[in-house]
Amino acid sequence: MNKLVIFGVGLIGGSVALALKQAQAVRHIVGIGRDGDHLQTALELGVIDEAQTSLASALDQADMVLIAAPVAQTFSILQSIAPHLSPDTIVTDAGSTKSDIVAYAETALGDRHHQFVPGHPIAGAEKSGVTAARADLFSKKNVVLTPFSNTKASDIGKVQAMWEACGAHVIKMTAAEHDRIFAAVSHLPHLLAFALVNELANRPNADQLFDFAASGFRDFSRIAGSHPEMWRDISLANQAALLDEIDAYQAQLSHVRELLQQQDGAGLQQLFERASHARNAWARHKKY
Amino acid sequence: MNKLVIFGVGLIGGSVALALKQAQAVRHIVGIGRDGDHLQTALELGVIDEAQTSLASALDQADMVLIAAPVAQTFSILQSIAPHLSPDTIVTDAGSTKSDIVAYAETALGDRHHQFVPGHPIAGAEKSGVTAARADLFSKKNVVLTPFSNTKASDIGKVQAMWEACGAHVIKMTAAEHDRIFAAVSHLPHLLAFALVNELANRPNADQLFDFAASGFRDFSRIAGSHPEMWRDISLANQAALLDEIDAYQAQLSHVRELLQQQDGAGLQQLFERASHARNAWARHKKY
Repeated sequence: MNKLVIFGVGLIGGSVALALKQAQAVRHIVGIGRDGDHLQTALELGVIDEAQTSLASALDQADMVLIAAPVAQTFSILQSIAPHLSPDTIVTDAGSTKSDIVAYAETALGDRHHQFVPGHPIAGAEKSGVTAARADLFSKKNVVLTPFSNTKASDIGKVQAMWEACGAHVIKMTAAEHDRIFAAVSHLPHLLAFALVNELANRPNADQLFDFAASGFRDFSRIAGSHPEMWRDISLANQAALLDEIDAYQAQLSHVRELLQQQDGAGLQQLFERASHARNAWARHKKY
Repeated sequence: MNKLVIFGVGLIGGSVALALKQAQAVRHIVGIGRDGDHLQTALELGVIDEAQTSLASALDQADMVLIAAPVAQTFSILQSIAPHLSPDTIVTDAGSTKSDIVAYAETALGDRHHQFVPGHPIAGAEKSGVTAARADLFSKKNVVLTPFSNTKASDIGKVQAMWEACGAHVIKMTAAEHDRIFAAVSHLPHLLAFALVNELANRPNADQLFDFAASGFRDFSRIAGSHPEMWRDISLANQAALLDEIDAYQAQLSHVRELLQQQDGAGLQQLFERASHARNAWARHKKY
């Protein structure tokens, strides 16, 4: 690839840039974003080759545009690039939800929405920002693409090739399927952790409770320390699937409560064994 | 202390032995338990000085008895030592629940129940068994004691001194207060994690779901890999407090669901911020 434009050169955008440079898979990387200081840092760190504020010059001759800015900005970014988008430029993103992004693209890009290939790299880190960017962030990690049915296979192939050059494993599915899966394995757990910590923090004896919280609480609640605005946006963007997951979980928890209420030791043990076995089997093969 | 008898020389019992030896706080440690092989290993590792199968000789002249066997065995152990318990011997335990242990002691020890000082060291590790025992397992960790009102202050002081010699910080409270606190910060999180993994594991697309589970799921679900029988026993032993916690949590989760249903972004963000702030503040000062 000759020219890549990255909106939002933070942990994700910066790590893609570093990985593609290391793989010599791109000649020129242009960074563009709201925060000039962050772009300057990215430039000084050699993560990008050019810091741009002009959309026209950034998009001129661009092979690909990667939107790695906060999801809340995706729609306005798509609207802003639409007038400058040449038929040969492919656009992709790195958002955690996909059905909403698909709708944004159709509205903002109109009959050129097929030039947009929605993506979701399943990778992250405790830290954020370009200073935390790493060339190996996506190594052996999953990247989900949810392309439109009318997108050329060759265009999808270019986005897939970009992520594979970053060392990632690419899987394709529909946006709806993606959102259902991540509502279950990511979005729901985050809401459950936020809910537990909020429940305890609101109690009169919160300080005493936290003083006795140990390693189990530490790991269970780690994701409750996640970015509030980001998770507000993800929750709202995936509302339908997430509501279904909350309902299924409430039913499951009510079942556990019933077993406990009935003092059904055998039933509790069987349920704990199924969970323990599944979790430990997952841990033996996990990529994360 | 001259003679300490440990029932169940595993991670907890073995670590107490190693810590007290390192602190030169005990002259002779006798290990007693169901599994002769484990006791032999403990003896060979120098964790204990004597492996006993005879309760009479084990308890003869004993200053203290530490019950560190699986909680399900506590009652039968208390019954078995009762006939051999001299008025000068103090008994303590390391169980995760205390109200049930208090009742066991009253039944099994009768009018000598005041010689029993219930305890709960807040420490553990991924591994179990005497080979995982470490002299520093309790360093700077909390140990809760829930003594009877008619136990001599000097007897409570001896148990406190034992744990302080292990480097632990000792807190006293009632058994009921202990059980309410740990239902909230430990037992509930375990049930929530078991419930999530069980919910996902039972679905037709479980393999696909687990394939996309990442680091958030990894940490959230770690405690779902815990020992099923142990958590069955803890759940049943702390049933009343745990049922209250499940009810409070379901109400909290229903509140989150309501905010999501109403697309109340401000409300969700405020709740996530409160949780995130509380969790990160805890993480800055946590001992675990």
